[in-house]
Amino acid sequence: MTRKGILFIISGPSGVGKGTIKDAVLKKNTDIKLSISATTREPRSGETNGREYYFVDEDQFRQLIDNDELLEWANVYDNMYGTPRQFVEKNLNRGQDVMLEIDIQGAFQIKARKPDGVFIFIAPPNIEELSVRLEERGKDTPESIELRLAACKWEMEQMKHYDYVVLNHELETAVDTVCSIITAERCKVKNLIWSVI
Amino acid sequence: MTRKGILFIISGPSGVGKGTIKDAVLKKNTDIKLSISATTREPRSGETNGREYYFVDEDQFRQLIDNDELLEWANVYDNMYGTPRQFVEKNLNRGQDVMLEIDIQGAFQIKARKPDGVFIFIAPPNIEELSVRLEERGKDTPESIELRLAACKWEMEQMKHYDYVVLNHELETAVDTVCSIITAERCKVKNLIWSVI
Repeated sequence: MTRKGILFIISGPSGVGKGTIKDAVLKKNTDIKLSISATTREPRSGETNGREYYFVDEDQFRQLIDNDELLEWANVYDNMYGTPRQFVEKNLNRGQDVMLEIDIQGAFQIKARKPDGVFIFIAPPNIEELSVRLEERGKDTPESIELRLAACKWEMEQMKHYDYVVLNHELETAVDTVCSIITAERCKVKNLIWSVI
Repeated sequence: MTRKGILFIISGPSGVGKGTIKDAVLKKNTDIKLSISATTREPRSGETNGREYYFVDEDQFRQLIDNDELLEWANVYDNMYGTPRQFVEKNLNRGQDVMLEIDIQGAFQIKARKPDGVFIFIAPPNIEELSVRLEERGKDTPESIELRLAACKWEMEQMKHYDYVVLNHELETAVDTVCSIITAERCKVKNLIWSVI
């Protein structure tokens, strides 16, 4: 009995802690490959090409787009970021699981092309209380509170397009929960290839 | 954010150890209710009505069938066994998870009525080697080997109608895997009720 490779997408609102969770999960699952993004931004001190990012120039990035070699891409503050398709597909095809950490918009692009992926939404705790807290702390104008709540509401609503929701209330618990999701997905009958029976 | 109750079905070939796994999983998940079968067989020494089984007579059992109060039922060696529907539905409706241990035929009856259930197939290890082992031990006639392999082959093929497969190679690992499946299913977006956002 062998398995197809599974694409795990760790996603959610910015600042929710999805990067920390992803790092901890990969440390416990060293057999999962992390997908590395390509970017046109300059490497920061300590960053290595092929580890944090693949650093490319704008022409190279345009080429990747034109050749349909990106699963998703976005322009953030005038820098381009994208997910190389070949790395993901090569690993999945040989039964290797791949993990990808990405924002909500990026996750939607991935889902359009990889609907079989396992989409995990990391949610902030106590969403219900955000409004109350924002008002109570008294630092924000009513308009900025309204904007933040609207943004938060939109982000939380996108949850429904995901497969799983993990509340990041306590890091250790959130990490264990994502690990359980990985274990469960690997036992799914639909992910098995019936080579034997 | 609240949840719908989830029905977990632990099933698989006879002798695979599903009862032992179910007991260990329930010990670790005391918030899951175990569904108790109704039966017409006589209580054995030490068995208590409502704990191992609901002991009923044949007339009462026929009544349960006629009133559509059983999710599934079967006649095994002239004794009737069945799964009371009300207990399962009452708990699921109030957000309480329920577990059911049942053979393959019973699981199919459950699936017809509860397609949203989570169907977990407990598989024996080293299925591939069964044929070799049976021949090597030399105790069985070719006909009995053929019969056993055909039965085993049919049982293993039914796996494809389930959601998950858990190999019972090592009890502790199998129990942990079922617990991971429970954790993962509880995070599924489709099992959440959007009361808040």
